[in-house]
Amino acid sequence: MQTIRIAIAGYGNVGRMVAQMIVERRAEDLAAGRDLRLVALLGRRNGLVSSEGLEPVAPAALTGPTGPAALAAAAPDVVIEAGPSDYASGEPSASYIRAAFGLGSHVVVASKAALVREGIALRNEAAAKGLQLRISAAAAAALPVLDLLCDSHRGAGVFRIEGILNATCNVLLTAMARDGQSFDLALAAARAAGVAEADHRNDTGGFDAAAKLLLLANFGLGLSLTLDQIGREDLAALTPAHFDLWRARGEVPKQIARLELTESGVHADVSIRAFPAGHAFAGVEGGAKAVRITSRDMGEVFCTGHGEEPRATAAALLKDLLRICA
Amino acid sequence: MQTIRIAIAGYGNVGRMVAQMIVERRAEDLAAGRDLRLVALLGRRNGLVSSEGLEPVAPAALTGPTGPAALAAAAPDVVIEAGPSDYASGEPSASYIRAAFGLGSHVVVASKAALVREGIALRNEAAAKGLQLRISAAAAAALPVLDLLCDSHRGAGVFRIEGILNATCNVLLTAMARDGQSFDLALAAARAAGVAEADHRNDTGGFDAAAKLLLLANFGLGLSLTLDQIGREDLAALTPAHFDLWRARGEVPKQIARLELTESGVHADVSIRAFPAGHAFAGVEGGAKAVRITSRDMGEVFCTGHGEEPRATAAALLKDLLRICA
Repeated sequence: MQTIRIAIAGYGNVGRMVAQMIVERRAEDLAAGRDLRLVALLGRRNGLVSSEGLEPVAPAALTGPTGPAALAAAAPDVVIEAGPSDYASGEPSASYIRAAFGLGSHVVVASKAALVREGIALRNEAAAKGLQLRISAAAAAALPVLDLLCDSHRGAGVFRIEGILNATCNVLLTAMARDGQSFDLALAAARAAGVAEADHRNDTGGFDAAAKLLLLANFGLGLSLTLDQIGREDLAALTPAHFDLWRARGEVPKQIARLELTESGVHADVSIRAFPAGHAFAGVEGGAKAVRITSRDMGEVFCTGHGEEPRATAAALLKDLLRICA
Repeated sequence: MQTIRIAIAGYGNVGRMVAQMIVERRAEDLAAGRDLRLVALLGRRNGLVSSEGLEPVAPAALTGPTGPAALAAAAPDVVIEAGPSDYASGEPSASYIRAAFGLGSHVVVASKAALVREGIALRNEAAAKGLQLRISAAAAAALPVLDLLCDSHRGAGVFRIEGILNATCNVLLTAMARDGQSFDLALAAARAAGVAEADHRNDTGGFDAAAKLLLLANFGLGLSLTLDQIGREDLAALTPAHFDLWRARGEVPKQIARLELTESGVHADVSIRAFPAGHAFAGVEGGAKAVRITSRDMGEVFCTGHGEEPRATAAALLKDLLRICA
């Protein structure tokens, strides 16, 4: 029996779902010869550490110390960084990741903040220590685009990535294009449905999709892109005239994050593009995500994913963890 | 610099393309610290072995001994089994794979014959010797469905796989459904275009799709399915009345290989199913392949692939090889 000691850093929706799924899957994991043992649950204000192993608890039951300093007592094999984190500072994600590396622990990450700010340094730090840093959950969760790039297209000469990576924008654009709603009306409906956050600008301004594209570029293709190299088009700047034109042409608008490698270098942007009704991207609706990868040797691979959150993100974290421990 | 000694067993279209692509990619591989060295090219009647390494040659330039016994002198790290092989005997694939294991070599495989006949034994033999047996190219080549199952869905509880896995049937059904052609007419056109083989029954009878589904089940989900457990529907049995009905309903027929895990066991078959025009499967045309994977924790992942042959199959072999050597 292989024992895998797991610390969960960040005990919000995703962190709690990871803990719950470890319990749900216990019989399966034991049958496969794996004992996934929770040794730390670290919330924002309080935590719980047990070197012996512990069961998931309600957040209110976390009564001990928390934070990166609390990791050492847990001696984890893998730290699951389950966010959320602050884009301005990358914290607490960055400190958790560095503390884990300091303890010789592998890390799987769900929040983009630290990875966007200093992902290349963290990637290099992991490599220098012979540790794994896996970030499927941060990149597109249940849409396995990093696996497709790193593994399925290894050596194939990927030269273009195009994706619908932000579900909020996809929901808004569907409402605006198909139902003729204004931006404000579509946004209000999306908020009421819990699909849009109070501050929508990260999503609608293209920042979230750009951040994901950056992670695909840097972790999937080994580039060293920075966020200011990715152009962004704001959804809020679209006018009724845009939608009238697309409707007249029978086209469907989508927010597309695109990266292209050419002889003259890397071009990356997030823009609103319209597709004919029969196009694969046109059929990606609601909370689904999609990516098209074009390569020299494998042609076109198109993939869509649609999982229920936070379960799908938690499943992506656990997939990364199982790949580390295999 | 990591040197990877490669023997190519089977020097037809796919084997020659592998050799050509190793040359095309040489600068990239060297820059990545890999020296992919060809040490054996083994055709059906003759071969060429050089422990020092050799360049790709025309088949007529193969003048030495060939066959599994010729592998030993090459001392390969990896044997690329590039087919074709005979379904009735599994040869020469099976003998090449066993000879490679005997030499302590990893194997990547393009032909299904040996894997369908005795894949489970070969899988177990590889595991017992600590060797890798990778079969992406045999399962669906550029459609990375084995990677999606083994890696991207690890632990996620996959319970359903549905796929358009046979390109010949897809081309025939498109011609019959959309253009109203008879089976015989569609088949003649597909043969003229080089899409259908002289003996079409492997494809149209559902045998090829069933063989691929078996590989997904046994290598992707760890099952132990045999071919006689997979029901098959013959394309040639469809009548004009079927197509009239589908056309009247606005539906598009596809050959679907389906595997379902339920509490009562495994159900697997290859059948003709009709989808509404907007359905993702309905839009998969011509030589494209597609798969939909449904799991407990990641919802639905849908993927299509469309690469140019034999390049895409060769790229899948080289991808597997690079994953072994990483």
